[in-house]
Amino acid sequence: MPFPFQKLAVFGPGLLGGSICLAAREKRISKKTAVWARRADSAAEILRMGAADEAGTDPGMMVAGADLVVLCTPIGVMSELSNRFLADLAETAIVTDVGSVKGPVVTALEAIFTERGKFVGSHPMAGSEQAGLEAATSSLFEGSTCILTPTDKTDPTALQKVGQFWMACGSVLRELSPLEHDRIIGSLSHLPHAVAAALACAASEVCDQPADFCGNGLLDSTRIAGGPPGMWTEIFLNNREVLLESIKRMEAQLQRLKQGLSNSDAAAIEQFLSQAKTDRDRCTKS
Amino acid sequence: MPFPFQKLAVFGPGLLGGSICLAAREKRISKKTAVWARRADSAAEILRMGAADEAGTDPGMMVAGADLVVLCTPIGVMSELSNRFLADLAETAIVTDVGSVKGPVVTALEAIFTERGKFVGSHPMAGSEQAGLEAATSSLFEGSTCILTPTDKTDPTALQKVGQFWMACGSVLRELSPLEHDRIIGSLSHLPHAVAAALACAASEVCDQPADFCGNGLLDSTRIAGGPPGMWTEIFLNNREVLLESIKRMEAQLQRLKQGLSNSDAAAIEQFLSQAKTDRDRCTKS
Repeated sequence: MPFPFQKLAVFGPGLLGGSICLAAREKRISKKTAVWARRADSAAEILRMGAADEAGTDPGMMVAGADLVVLCTPIGVMSELSNRFLADLAETAIVTDVGSVKGPVVTALEAIFTERGKFVGSHPMAGSEQAGLEAATSSLFEGSTCILTPTDKTDPTALQKVGQFWMACGSVLRELSPLEHDRIIGSLSHLPHAVAAALACAASEVCDQPADFCGNGLLDSTRIAGGPPGMWTEIFLNNREVLLESIKRMEAQLQRLKQGLSNSDAAAIEQFLSQAKTDRDRCTKS
Repeated sequence: MPFPFQKLAVFGPGLLGGSICLAAREKRISKKTAVWARRADSAAEILRMGAADEAGTDPGMMVAGADLVVLCTPIGVMSELSNRFLADLAETAIVTDVGSVKGPVVTALEAIFTERGKFVGSHPMAGSEQAGLEAATSSLFEGSTCILTPTDKTDPTALQKVGQFWMACGSVLRELSPLEHDRIIGSLSHLPHAVAAALACAASEVCDQPADFCGNGLLDSTRIAGGPPGMWTEIFLNNREVLLESIKRMEAQLQRLKQGLSNSDAAAIEQFLSQAKTDRDRCTKS
């Protein structure tokens, strides 16, 4: 089978960017892969790993001849980087990103890729509390959900090609509008991160050596709080209205439990825990 | 090596009771194992599995000749059961339990085992969101923490023998007073369960098919919310004062994040997430 893409340009060789390079090589998704890194030593590292054919710190050079560009940097720098490589981008090149917030990102990038490049927003839900190239693996996307966020400006062929790319990486596709994405993912991903972080702070206050008494329950429920603070600050701020609303819903549930505890109301507490169990089961893939 | 115990009587063949039977057989901890079950078919099932030498629904028959009794039932029925078998218990028999709350349990059981039986409270932190005999495994306790909760009434030899038992099961031992146990475990285990349950309810409100958009983050952080609602209601109510205080600390952390979000204060949010990451790391065994 011929390669679906001739040249893939990946921006940002972190966990996602590095995993895309490894998947693209292993699954023969692109004939060539180029990687842009902010630091020369990161570019050298990806070459040393044999995960890319070229790597460097010049955005324009990396996109030259690329038919697919994937932005895997923190969302705060995607626009600036895009403007730096725009002049070197082929008119027909497809551009996508992996940002965890889509409303502001899609708006900003759609405004850049009007004459040159066709933009489609993506959110591969395949992160981990680990970060960086050393955690990258070609199987990161296997069985994971990738949400595409087309708008009325999206080129249908570009949408189809981006979907083909993620499926080749191993993802299962879903489609949502950028705003719908942020509303749902604000609850299903950003809220859990916020809650895990608050729980890690609140739980460990009680003793000097929490590791001595910690069961798997706390470790599992706070695992994601080990993620990169800077990246998550950016995600939270870019979806702050939704996250604030989600936290209020969380507070209402805690209030409900407090009420049951204050009244020693066994039936109310059991009803709360039963609903939680049912809701949790609804979240697991059948 | 001779068996450390001649006859082990386990009350309640659920996840913990069943795992103790399997571990006792595999690791040659007791020469004979007897299991009390509330229902005759549960008793038959444990015999069918070959995990016990005798099983039945009569408490007195199960403790006859036992030198170690382990109560693995819900905490709410431990006192009543103990009173039912007390007359048949050897004076020198050691009794322990696996309750997740220790203050009220230890007080109640110490008051029962004064003339016959020597009581020591235990909390093996080796649960799981799974429940029941079908999830039992001989390796459940391997590497897990077991907290012993002696008081000034505890017989030193009994304490040492109960520690020997849990170590033989694979646990690492810790000691806390019952009240200190409840204060620390209220934060490190009961609070995470409460938070996971509230999160499962709050997160899944936003869409009909949360499984379609769920990443591992939400699944991990709500895993424990899949635990048995009735059992956890009892735990929560038996540690309600501590849990209420813990929930207030959780709310204060959420409030701190909301403040940062409301003010779009990136530095405050990043500081919160960095502390969470540090606190989370403190909870993992080094």
